[in-house]
Amino acid sequence: MSSQAKHPTLLIPGPIEVTDEVSQSMATFAQSHVGQPFVNTFGEALSMLRQLFQTKNPNSQPFAIAGSGTLGWDLAAANLVEPGEEVLVLHTGYFADSFADCFTTYGAKPTQLKAKIGGRPQLPEIEEALKSKKYKAVTVTHVDTSTGVLSQIQPLSDLIQKVSPDTLLIVDGVCSVGGEELHFDDMRVDFALTATQKAIGCPPGLSISMASEKAMNVFKSRKSPPGSYYASFKNWTPIMQNYEAKKPSYFATPPTQLVHALHTALTQLLQKPIADRVAQHQKISKKVKSVVTDLGLKQLATSPDNAANTMTAIYLPEGMTPPEILPKLMDRGVVFAGGLHKEIATKYIRFGHMGVSAMDESRGEIDKAIEALKEGLAEVQKAKGQ
Amino acid sequence: MSSQAKHPTLLIPGPIEVTDEVSQSMATFAQSHVGQPFVNTFGEALSMLRQLFQTKNPNSQPFAIAGSGTLGWDLAAANLVEPGEEVLVLHTGYFADSFADCFTTYGAKPTQLKAKIGGRPQLPEIEEALKSKKYKAVTVTHVDTSTGVLSQIQPLSDLIQKVSPDTLLIVDGVCSVGGEELHFDDMRVDFALTATQKAIGCPPGLSISMASEKAMNVFKSRKSPPGSYYASFKNWTPIMQNYEAKKPSYFATPPTQLVHALHTALTQLLQKPIADRVAQHQKISKKVKSVVTDLGLKQLATSPDNAANTMTAIYLPEGMTPPEILPKLMDRGVVFAGGLHKEIATKYIRFGHMGVSAMDESRGEIDKAIEALKEGLAEVQKAKGQ
Repeated sequence: MSSQAKHPTLLIPGPIEVTDEVSQSMATFAQSHVGQPFVNTFGEALSMLRQLFQTKNPNSQPFAIAGSGTLGWDLAAANLVEPGEEVLVLHTGYFADSFADCFTTYGAKPTQLKAKIGGRPQLPEIEEALKSKKYKAVTVTHVDTSTGVLSQIQPLSDLIQKVSPDTLLIVDGVCSVGGEELHFDDMRVDFALTATQKAIGCPPGLSISMASEKAMNVFKSRKSPPGSYYASFKNWTPIMQNYEAKKPSYFATPPTQLVHALHTALTQLLQKPIADRVAQHQKISKKVKSVVTDLGLKQLATSPDNAANTMTAIYLPEGMTPPEILPKLMDRGVVFAGGLHKEIATKYIRFGHMGVSAMDESRGEIDKAIEALKEGLAEVQKAKGQ
Repeated sequence: MSSQAKHPTLLIPGPIEVTDEVSQSMATFAQSHVGQPFVNTFGEALSMLRQLFQTKNPNSQPFAIAGSGTLGWDLAAANLVEPGEEVLVLHTGYFADSFADCFTTYGAKPTQLKAKIGGRPQLPEIEEALKSKKYKAVTVTHVDTSTGVLSQIQPLSDLIQKVSPDTLLIVDGVCSVGGEELHFDDMRVDFALTATQKAIGCPPGLSISMASEKAMNVFKSRKSPPGSYYASFKNWTPIMQNYEAKKPSYFATPPTQLVHALHTALTQLLQKPIADRVAQHQKISKKVKSVVTDLGLKQLATSPDNAANTMTAIYLPEGMTPPEILPKLMDRGVVFAGGLHKEIATKYIRFGHMGVSAMDESRGEIDKAIEALKEGLAEVQKAKGQ
């Protein structure tokens, strides 16, 4: 019996369900991290990351490093910004606060531009901020996993090009890459970070990122050494370049089985154009959001334009809490997540609809979840006499 | 067919062969990182780490974090030492140089005490160093994976207690924990770090460490904040404590499948007393080293007292190189590693004999490797007309 056998369907905004092939890749036998078979697998996975991020510039630099998505913040903060430099952090939820903390740890000076919950900072205020002082970088959370708010990268990039073209554009793509529209080259992104367990469709354990040629040049011209050892571009860049050239190299032992799973996930993902994948995520998201609206529920995202396609953050009916509804969903074989934004954590739930659950409708997982949500809400309301 | 099916036997000093049960745990279905089933698994794994490290002090603090073994250095350097403080790094190979680099990254001042290749710094010179200035910490590589040199922890600890009792004892146990004798409490170790892919017998991808009550107090009394975000005790300690108390908690998404594999590996490992496991590693090591001697080959370790029980670093016959012998071993289904110590990398090979390959003699892997080594050497020598 496969380990993938009957289990509750995981529809939180990451980790997500994975295909049987990805799951089996996790059980790959032990291999030397510097033996040619593994070197080839890792090298191919790194090359496929270029396709995933849609970058054709050979001087873009992919990284795949053992760690959580959080490690991507350290990569950005310890390599692309120097102590004392200013960073503008666009806030659309929990994750901007943490990213700002990370910058502070490495001596940078983050300024947060916050929106009300469910909204996002607007272009005129961002423009004003960018004109007020010299920012080394602007960070944006493409999809904030705590709120399901989507940020638009292209207009932000255009604004940076117009107002402060030296400023680096750093995209936290943890809940977006593989599900939302992100053209690394065309959108002039300088650093995008993600993790394997979201829309890429792989188990957690690898920090994935892409640095632009400009970002790598900014790194090379640092006056101070990188602020981290484990998250140092200096230590990892030659390793990634060697693996991609199919040459063994050593700084720290890569998680060989996870790299196999990433290779399998990317191979499956790239069988279709990325644009088709994004369109399918948009289609599923529209379906989910339409049901939510029909149920009389509101989303955290204040407008359709603000709403992620990889997940939906849903306000519960007045007086209902996540500990009431989540077990009813679990009874129906579906796992959703509770709230994460601390100010309103007890008032909403999160439904992740990305990766194979969104791409392969024949699995019926999204429909099952929608039914579970309808029935679960009704059951709780009935029990409460509403 | 299992993914564990026929493959070359991996006998490098990590990653190592894993049991079928550990391998299958890697293919565990997707689970929420904050759902009770996974929380229980992670919590139990953390508690089992206490047994592995042989600590009974409830204020010892285990950490299991997505990352390579290298991340353990950042944990030590960014949390236990403050900028400007002195660290004495005992050098027995490649890994001390890197650990020293890591300390420098976080502003500490490492002083290396080096021995000749195959040797280790001696107690009188360590005593002299400890008396010469105030060291915040002493680091020792229990087994240096590049040289196979074993350091003795107990006499070092006794010396520190005698000469400089405030100094923290930090043990790099990457190639030792689970195979060599390490009593965390009895040996008064303050921080020990390892990785899953060595003698613990799990795939790579988790940094494992244990901090003593004293180390945690030193951390709590820091004047400056930790130098890393991802490797911050401040961020991780409450998470580890919550998981161990079977309560969900979030800082960064743990690698759920790897945690399952760790749980399985530790469950299997702890079925026997640790002392028996260490004794079995010693027995297998003695067997390997006896064959090496019979073949007229020298080890890097200058004396039996210096030699690891988890691996053997073997000088090749004069004029023979790793690229000549390693393919002959591979022809016989055995993977050894080349040299890693840069001054002599072309002159030696490394044979890892730890974990299930050492513990379960019925697998016949060590005997197969010994035969392969004998035959492979003879084949190369014959081809060279020697």
